[in-house]
Amino acid sequence: DIGVAAGINILSAVGFLLVFAVVRIQPINDRVYFPKWYLKGTRSSPRHIGNVLSKFVNADVSTYLRFLNWMPAALKMPEPELIEHAGLDSAVYVRIYLLGLKIFVPITVLAFSVLVPVNWTSATLGDDEEGLSYDQIDKLSISNLGQGSKRFWVHIGMAYVFTFWTFYVLYHEYKVITTMRLHFLANQNRRPDQFTVLVRNIPADPDETVGEHVEHFFAVNHREHYLSHQVVYNANTLASLVEKKKGLQNWLVYYENQHAKNPEKELIIKTGLWGLWGEKVDALQHYKTTIEELCKQEDEERQKVISDPKAIMPAAFVSFNSQWGAAVCAQTQQTSNPTVWLTEWAPEPRDVYWPNLAIPFVELSVRRLIMAVALFFLTFFFMVPIALVQSVANLDDIERVLPFLKPIIERNGPRSVIQGFLPGIALKIFLIFLPTILMAMSKIEGHVSLSGLERRTASKYFLFIFVNVFLGSVVAGTAFQQLNSFIHQSTNKIPETIGESIPMKATFFITYIMVDGWAGIAAEVLRLKPLIMFHIKNTFLVRTEQDREQAMDPGSLEFGSTEPRIQLYFLLGLVYAVVTPIILPFIIVFFGLAYLVFRHQIINVYNQQYESGAQFWPGVHGRIVTALVISQILLIGLLSTQEAEQSTVALLPLPVLTIWFHYVCKGRFEPAYIKCPLQAGSKRILLISSPYITADDIHIVSNVKREQHLMFAGGHGEGHAATGKRPDAEPERVPQGRIRAPGLPQR
Amino acid sequence: DIGVAAGINILSAVGFLLVFAVVRIQPINDRVYFPKWYLKGTRSSPRHIGNVLSKFVNADVSTYLRFLNWMPAALKMPEPELIEHAGLDSAVYVRIYLLGLKIFVPITVLAFSVLVPVNWTSATLGDDEEGLSYDQIDKLSISNLGQGSKRFWVHIGMAYVFTFWTFYVLYHEYKVITTMRLHFLANQNRRPDQFTVLVRNIPADPDETVGEHVEHFFAVNHREHYLSHQVVYNANTLASLVEKKKGLQNWLVYYENQHAKNPEKELIIKTGLWGLWGEKVDALQHYKTTIEELCKQEDEERQKVISDPKAIMPAAFVSFNSQWGAAVCAQTQQTSNPTVWLTEWAPEPRDVYWPNLAIPFVELSVRRLIMAVALFFLTFFFMVPIALVQSVANLDDIERVLPFLKPIIERNGPRSVIQGFLPGIALKIFLIFLPTILMAMSKIEGHVSLSGLERRTASKYFLFIFVNVFLGSVVAGTAFQQLNSFIHQSTNKIPETIGESIPMKATFFITYIMVDGWAGIAAEVLRLKPLIMFHIKNTFLVRTEQDREQAMDPGSLEFGSTEPRIQLYFLLGLVYAVVTPIILPFIIVFFGLAYLVFRHQIINVYNQQYESGAQFWPGVHGRIVTALVISQILLIGLLSTQEAEQSTVALLPLPVLTIWFHYVCKGRFEPAYIKCPLQAGSKRILLISSPYITADDIHIVSNVKREQHLMFAGGHGEGHAATGKRPDAEPERVPQGRIRAPGLPQR
Repeated sequence: DIGVAAGINILSAVGFLLVFAVVRIQPINDRVYFPKWYLKGTRSSPRHIGNVLSKFVNADVSTYLRFLNWMPAALKMPEPELIEHAGLDSAVYVRIYLLGLKIFVPITVLAFSVLVPVNWTSATLGDDEEGLSYDQIDKLSISNLGQGSKRFWVHIGMAYVFTFWTFYVLYHEYKVITTMRLHFLANQNRRPDQFTVLVRNIPADPDETVGEHVEHFFAVNHREHYLSHQVVYNANTLASLVEKKKGLQNWLVYYENQHAKNPEKELIIKTGLWGLWGEKVDALQHYKTTIEELCKQEDEERQKVISDPKAIMPAAFVSFNSQWGAAVCAQTQQTSNPTVWLTEWAPEPRDVYWPNLAIPFVELSVRRLIMAVALFFLTFFFMVPIALVQSVANLDDIERVLPFLKPIIERNGPRSVIQGFLPGIALKIFLIFLPTILMAMSKIEGHVSLSGLERRTASKYFLFIFVNVFLGSVVAGTAFQQLNSFIHQSTNKIPETIGESIPMKATFFITYIMVDGWAGIAAEVLRLKPLIMFHIKNTFLVRTEQDREQAMDPGSLEFGSTEPRIQLYFLLGLVYAVVTPIILPFIIVFFGLAYLVFRHQIINVYNQQYESGAQFWPGVHGRIVTALVISQILLIGLLSTQEAEQSTVALLPLPVLTIWFHYVCKGRFEPAYIKCPLQAGSKRILLISSPYITADDIHIVSNVKREQHLMFAGGHGEGHAATGKRPDAEPERVPQGRIRAPGLPQR
Repeated sequence: DIGVAAGINILSAVGFLLVFAVVRIQPINDRVYFPKWYLKGTRSSPRHIGNVLSKFVNADVSTYLRFLNWMPAALKMPEPELIEHAGLDSAVYVRIYLLGLKIFVPITVLAFSVLVPVNWTSATLGDDEEGLSYDQIDKLSISNLGQGSKRFWVHIGMAYVFTFWTFYVLYHEYKVITTMRLHFLANQNRRPDQFTVLVRNIPADPDETVGEHVEHFFAVNHREHYLSHQVVYNANTLASLVEKKKGLQNWLVYYENQHAKNPEKELIIKTGLWGLWGEKVDALQHYKTTIEELCKQEDEERQKVISDPKAIMPAAFVSFNSQWGAAVCAQTQQTSNPTVWLTEWAPEPRDVYWPNLAIPFVELSVRRLIMAVALFFLTFFFMVPIALVQSVANLDDIERVLPFLKPIIERNGPRSVIQGFLPGIALKIFLIFLPTILMAMSKIEGHVSLSGLERRTASKYFLFIFVNVFLGSVVAGTAFQQLNSFIHQSTNKIPETIGESIPMKATFFITYIMVDGWAGIAAEVLRLKPLIMFHIKNTFLVRTEQDREQAMDPGSLEFGSTEPRIQLYFLLGLVYAVVTPIILPFIIVFFGLAYLVFRHQIINVYNQQYESGAQFWPGVHGRIVTALVISQILLIGLLSTQEAEQSTVALLPLPVLTIWFHYVCKGRFEPAYIKCPLQAGSKRILLISSPYITADDIHIVSNVKREQHLMFAGGHGEGHAATGKRPDAEPERVPQGRIRAPGLPQR
């Protein structure tokens, strides 16, 4: 069975890769496979040069011979350049795959040279092939040892070795990435959000507007460092006007192009619904006048919003004249009431999630309570449908329920296909809908940055994957009947029950890795959905150059939904490293392939919406540590069913040590991801042209439909923002000092 | 049984109180019962006035008639005056008892008007007195309801009412105490520790001494606020010299007094061991020369310590010229490496625990790991002896094992005495040794202030009391045999087992409350041990006035060991409020009596070693919330054994709501106990005569034997500390600002 499944999946993976290799060098697909370079402006359409045919199809034979070139090319770009090109978030993200290789390659070598021989030579399950339905794989697993075998001590020793190796790699990686982050932040040349603090829950003042209140408060409490502020306005009407104007301008460009091509032809359109009926007017004239009107409306609306106190949200972005001042304000408590004047580092302008800026303190805690309860129900009661599908995928059950299918199932071909694909795909379908729900839940929880939302979603998703994919497969898959008795089991029996099922599910998870991991990654690089969508849009909707830009869908990494899936592989690897080492090579292939593919994608395709400076790493680290603890507890459970009681005691220090390791790492590295050290805060501001204000005096983030509130420069902040500094600010008195952290050179 | 036990305990409590009332008005005991006033210098010994007899015995009859006067007197002092007199810590500590009254008086009224009638009129256990051995008390408890009775809904409703009432009182109290704390801190006139930050883990610098390094680091990174610093020195030899000199000076005073009384008599002493043999010398001359020699040695040693780089610890107290500057430094991270230059608010000079100032980061985390493991073993394996004693205290078991004792036990007198006293006393003896062990463990954990040590000890002790006193009594007491089966029970069965035993243990806990609570509190006010010790010392050891001062032992509240015991009463009250309300009046009497006694004690007796400004309140609040959650889970467990399945579902929201309530309170109030808001930091320093330095240039805290390190003004800090301010400091430019938190008037 497993051979056929492997064959199918390897074939489909190789197929995807081959198709990709051919399709990507066709000029017509250039914008699908290299959108990042277009967005950077360093690549222009190859369709403008050469003859007509070569605009669509690549006729250069030599390029076909080098069709696998993208692989070394993806690896060639050195890391500093990668950070420069794709941002630190992306560069660190692909390091997660590299971390997988670093952890599992040595573990695999050790496991195959020590554990596999030990398991294989224990002949317990050896030759009774008629008896129990153990697969051949089980001979290589821990199940091949008899009850109470002395050989379990080898496995216990290996569990310690694997744990300490994982500690070492994790610690080292955390250290490297922390250094990269600090280096990255230090090297960025005066990013405005490094001088800006987001202030929320500004209390209402009967005598002053929010703007005046903020001005007075910070002028008193941060007198030497306060520079300016920008109040957040709720300007939904204004936003829709701006959006409408943009659409009309695009049409105007289109008709101007038409006019330029064919100056004689009169461009007549109808003003009614979808241009199908209504009064006939001249297109150019019509759009010009409408845009002018809109501009006026916009100005009026802007005046209205500025003067309307109801449109002002109790939140503001406060800028300081030095990074030191901003660091102080972000890290300290402002008043004796900790529910007002809440300060934190401002997210990047692109990273702000505007709708959540104005949630009051009490509402926030109610929202979090409701979402915690909802997450519980979602996680634990979503299990029922998965378990149903899993038990349907059990062919023996199907045969029993639907005996007429027996002849079909019993034949080798369909049986292998169904067993190879069905369980993985059933899970996959469930998982597609999930990230959106979880992201919505995170939004309700009220986080103020997109990166924060993604991080919260990731941790929710990991919980879900662990309970439903991992535990759901292990427990419900082997014996759906066990589930009921499981609830009424003793506390110490639960790890035993799960642990006992672990070796039996190795085959299932190998299949899962091949379907979800190998074929999934290969499909990722092919970008089938964006490819089709681009060609549909290109054919039917693209009128102007701007439309073509928009038809291009570079996508992004989507940390919240992709990272927890990687974590599943870490979990599987750590759980099976001691139990069934045969699963490890499959995981290594996954990590290797994924590293290659995602490095290619972040270089050529993805366009990150924001840059958080690898703020997600503590979460990634924490989840790997969680997986390690889970693997240790399950190993204890498994061994205690094997009549090796002493082994349980011998393994107990492992989870304690792991949790301790987590706290050590947390204390040592996590502050670098939350706080900004004062020592680094020696940058002084030169001229702030705040990106929280655009030329239009109005900030609209890229995806305007999700917006509820908009922010633009308000009364008091304006004066300072315009001049860029207060009269008494000392722009270049940089107190560099004699003390400088090593390893942080200046550019 | 319970009647006799109550009688005995009430009698002993009343006896203690009567003895106290008589003993306290005897002049000879004045220093035992009013040491605080002596230490304050407002009371002089009454033995100096009147005739000889009245020096020792109070002959004034009228005072005997007013022998209960101390009770209203204890309540008379208004709270602001109490804070002024005894400190905020003490004033807030007695409010814990008041909080108990506030929570339980209304609950008792409700329980007796609703639950008791409901229980009493359910005649399930009614008249089969021959059958099961239920006490009369059980008729008033929930056990009197039959399986699956509809009346359980009344109890569920009451559980909600009690929970919400507790929420209300807890929230209100947290708010009041937070206001008191902020008020207290704002009113204190320029306390030096409000301008000082403790810096630990100062990294070694090859080119500079620690003092220079600190000076340079803060002059660069806090250039506008840095004032001075004091390095911590390890000066154990110096400390022992100073201590020795003190002892000799006391002898000198004694001999000078002797000489003054009787100038003719020659005072000859022997220089050998204990003055028993050796060379004979003139006493006055001998002590004078020895003290002079010691002074010289001290000077030499002091020079040696200052110049010896090995004596310098990598820790320092850094002072700022404004509270704002200190608040900023204490709350922010200094460098990108979060394991060096760790800053926190300096504890009060009296509050510093010197030996822990110099523990490196990694050692600290190893210490905490070891202590966590040790606490686990201490808590969970200490249970065995307790359970043994408990089962011995079970008279029926004793009868079975030792049948020859049957005639004695069966008689009413001894049976009552044993059942009334033994279980409580057995526990009590175990508990006496514990706080010292737990305090030692907290010290190993490496906290830097005495108040922090007390807080950590309290939370350890509470865990211990919960597991061993509460769970130990409930489970092992009823059925020692159950313990073994208990480990192998299902997760959801554990609350059921405990819950089921709860009603049966009501009698035991009533006895416990009377022994530990009533009689214990009455014994507390009598101060038997200090009374005896004082008279022994006064008779045999006191030679000079200084000796008499030292013979006086005012003691202190000892938060770490007393507060968790109060928490046990909260736990019992909350657990039994719904189950067996008859226990509530006993708890109310305890809280009332304890409030009275401790208010008297903090006014007249206790002398707190330090003042932390009620920093322990978040812990107190958290433990009451924990008790609430435990009571809810046990109620769910109890009801699910009564065939009232729906009730389990109806009660499940309660623990979720309680945990949420905890987080709301934490977010709302806890920062006030950890951080200092910048807005309040408007005090500017006038002149710092740091209490971290004494006149001797050396700081010795009161209990010198516990000291490992001593600190005194070092090289670079000295100059500033001497002048009190840097030349460029602006002493009185207080930027008060227009913004001021309401409710914080200035004095």
